[in-house]
Amino acid sequence: MLKNFLTATGMLILTFNITFAQNEDITFRDIAIAITNTAMLEGKAYSMLKELCYDIGSRLSGSPQAAAAIEWSRQTMLKYGFEDVQLQPVMVPHWVRGKIEEATIINASIVGTVPLSISALGGSIGTSDLGIVAEAIEVHSLKEVASLGKKAQGKIVFYNRPMDPRTMNTFAGYGGAVNQRTLGAIEAAKVGAVAVLVRSITTRMDHVPHTGLMLYDKNVPRIPAAAISTIDAELLSKLIKQEDKVQVRIRLDCKTYPDIQSFNVIGEIPGVETPDEIVLLGAHLDSWDAGHGAHDDGAGCVQVIEALRLLRILNLKPKRTIRAVHFMCEEFGIRGGPVYADSVKKNGPKHIAAIEADRGGFTPWGFSVSADSAIVEKIRRWSYLFEEIGAANIFKGGGGPDISPLNQLGTVTIGLFVDYHRYFDYHHSANDTFDKVNERELELGAVAMAILSYVLAMEGVE
Amino acid sequence: MLKNFLTATGMLILTFNITFAQNEDITFRDIAIAITNTAMLEGKAYSMLKELCYDIGSRLSGSPQAAAAIEWSRQTMLKYGFEDVQLQPVMVPHWVRGKIEEATIINASIVGTVPLSISALGGSIGTSDLGIVAEAIEVHSLKEVASLGKKAQGKIVFYNRPMDPRTMNTFAGYGGAVNQRTLGAIEAAKVGAVAVLVRSITTRMDHVPHTGLMLYDKNVPRIPAAAISTIDAELLSKLIKQEDKVQVRIRLDCKTYPDIQSFNVIGEIPGVETPDEIVLLGAHLDSWDAGHGAHDDGAGCVQVIEALRLLRILNLKPKRTIRAVHFMCEEFGIRGGPVYADSVKKNGPKHIAAIEADRGGFTPWGFSVSADSAIVEKIRRWSYLFEEIGAANIFKGGGGPDISPLNQLGTVTIGLFVDYHRYFDYHHSANDTFDKVNERELELGAVAMAILSYVLAMEGVE
Repeated sequence: MLKNFLTATGMLILTFNITFAQNEDITFRDIAIAITNTAMLEGKAYSMLKELCYDIGSRLSGSPQAAAAIEWSRQTMLKYGFEDVQLQPVMVPHWVRGKIEEATIINASIVGTVPLSISALGGSIGTSDLGIVAEAIEVHSLKEVASLGKKAQGKIVFYNRPMDPRTMNTFAGYGGAVNQRTLGAIEAAKVGAVAVLVRSITTRMDHVPHTGLMLYDKNVPRIPAAAISTIDAELLSKLIKQEDKVQVRIRLDCKTYPDIQSFNVIGEIPGVETPDEIVLLGAHLDSWDAGHGAHDDGAGCVQVIEALRLLRILNLKPKRTIRAVHFMCEEFGIRGGPVYADSVKKNGPKHIAAIEADRGGFTPWGFSVSADSAIVEKIRRWSYLFEEIGAANIFKGGGGPDISPLNQLGTVTIGLFVDYHRYFDYHHSANDTFDKVNERELELGAVAMAILSYVLAMEGVE
Repeated sequence: MLKNFLTATGMLILTFNITFAQNEDITFRDIAIAITNTAMLEGKAYSMLKELCYDIGSRLSGSPQAAAAIEWSRQTMLKYGFEDVQLQPVMVPHWVRGKIEEATIINASIVGTVPLSISALGGSIGTSDLGIVAEAIEVHSLKEVASLGKKAQGKIVFYNRPMDPRTMNTFAGYGGAVNQRTLGAIEAAKVGAVAVLVRSITTRMDHVPHTGLMLYDKNVPRIPAAAISTIDAELLSKLIKQEDKVQVRIRLDCKTYPDIQSFNVIGEIPGVETPDEIVLLGAHLDSWDAGHGAHDDGAGCVQVIEALRLLRILNLKPKRTIRAVHFMCEEFGIRGGPVYADSVKKNGPKHIAAIEADRGGFTPWGFSVSADSAIVEKIRRWSYLFEEIGAANIFKGGGGPDISPLNQLGTVTIGLFVDYHRYFDYHHSANDTFDKVNERELELGAVAMAILSYVLAMEGVE
């Protein structure tokens, strides 16, 4: 309706059925404007994300929902006319959260029994049916745990170093806290601890635990590990300071099963001149099993499809192939990306560039580029194409976890760089839901990727 | 707790009790970092906004809630140690929405009776108890209405020109649609229409009407006017195309009472060298009577207080006075700003610069400056102070509705420029609630205003 009205009243600057490739006078700027206007008038990223979030929901690697998402992705690529749509087998971990997930302070003298809001970390073993009861001791770093020695014996180690809110780039703030979650159980088990609780990695004070991957070392005993909400982390910390010995019971029935087969989903717009040279757009289809996985990384997945869809309905014919890849299993140890890169290494085709969207569907600010300076400079010369949408910030260093293995094969890897202030409010938690995504912001990320992928496919990187 | 931990572990870069003014070696950059870190560690903007939104709620000019907000503002300024806190009388319109607000399509052949989601526009007269029943005719501009002539006689004119989603700066998109709301009733009444419905000015498709001010002309009959939600605007438009004559009943019992007295709220940090030169920070305390008025303009109000609070707790001593002003009645015809400017014109003191925050509590991008080019260039030379927080974009032309009259007195007027993609999703609607505001984004706007006001108060504009 809106499109019809705006078209009828002459407000539409460029109509949709121009075959751009047939007209030599059309500039990249014209194409950027056409992509932007088409997206803002009749974008599909938001409605696609609504389907993924409400019809399927969260998509933990190895889960039935992940399988449903693969089929949704395949069908959506086919619906929008992508070519050579295929599934690429990937073996993925199969960890199941189970139904019991409890932590309770059992002896607080002032308040008695206090339930804590926790979420098992991905990969954690469960406890026995009776659970673990032990004194909780608070630490703020892996080093501090190591220094505890025998004092940690038989204890629950509570990692409580906050994500520093002063770090403007929240991804750096996250990086400053995440080793407690990934390596905390190993370091605590080395000194005899029986379980770990890890403060959720967010600057928000909220009641929702933020989960994520944790690791074990085959030479160190495995102990259960869970994230605790920031508000309950503050409470537990306060009680540990006030009480003599704070006893916590933890019960988890999560469990790891043998790896099972899953798939990356691939589709493309073939290049008209050198189809064996690829510009890849990627995001990861799996998510954690809380909320909808809306920003992480449902947003990236629909942006990847939307970018190709916009190029297709504008009838643009890139010289090189533009390929969409939905990687499976980024969250649970990055499986899909390396499998994809291995197949490229063995069989080709040459991937000249790869752009990954895995920082949430927020207002795009630009791109981070891992390549030598001459290539970064070349891409920076196209920044005028992104000024209108505010995404003209091109800087060196970046990419994304799934495309990182391609970088080692000589591919220029590029990350879509977006407003980072809200991401960790939602990240890996029940708050990462569809309603936290704004349609304009989401769509503009797709626009940025569509423009850059098209220019790369026309001009190459050399 | 967080602050204590970060301080104890040496993560705090600058402690709070340094008397900056006593140390000549402290640079503006040091101060910008200290303001930013203090805000991110122990900012109060978000908790202040929570109070304003949940304890008081929306604050229509002339309402008891507006009076409560004035008292909240006064007490909050006193609590944070502002000096010379005072109320400045302002006469404001007193329009009351009433309890009846209905629009219904009464003769749709396919679907029968269809209720429409509407909201009386601010200032509208009501209908009789029985309401108005008339055929709805759709138009897309004031010009189109004028050209209707007698065809509009006795009809309900339905303005349905959408806010253009392709306009990146949504404030410009809003500007392209808003004359239907402000002037629509006048133009429709001139050709004999009996009421108007106006499509809500938002790019979102939603069920929530977005209200706002409408005007009458004393030489033209007054007819009732209401905003209709975008989804219902699409529905009504569709039915008008499909049916022979679509009859709509409208009932409103809104009413205008005589103007009543209200107040601007003023407080300050006195300058230590030239206290009679002022740098003003302003926002408007009133809102529409839907939602919480969280982004419009609760956010600006708490940012203004927070900016001064941050300067105070860092014990900064500006040469010139930094003054906070909460203007009353921006929404209902901009009353508080002109009253304030009039008092300045009569009594002084000299206002060298004024910064207004009235674009929502979103990620700050920079400042728009109304001043001659040399002054804009001077302010731009401070942009390095805003790079860390991403708000270094300084451009010419801007300010804000409440400080605009000061510009005519020679004051440099400056608008806080923020991410504009989400603002009109919420604007003047039931969706403008506290939960739509992000703590980091809100706080960073206050940081930007604190830094700029301090530098202006130290360096002046000449």
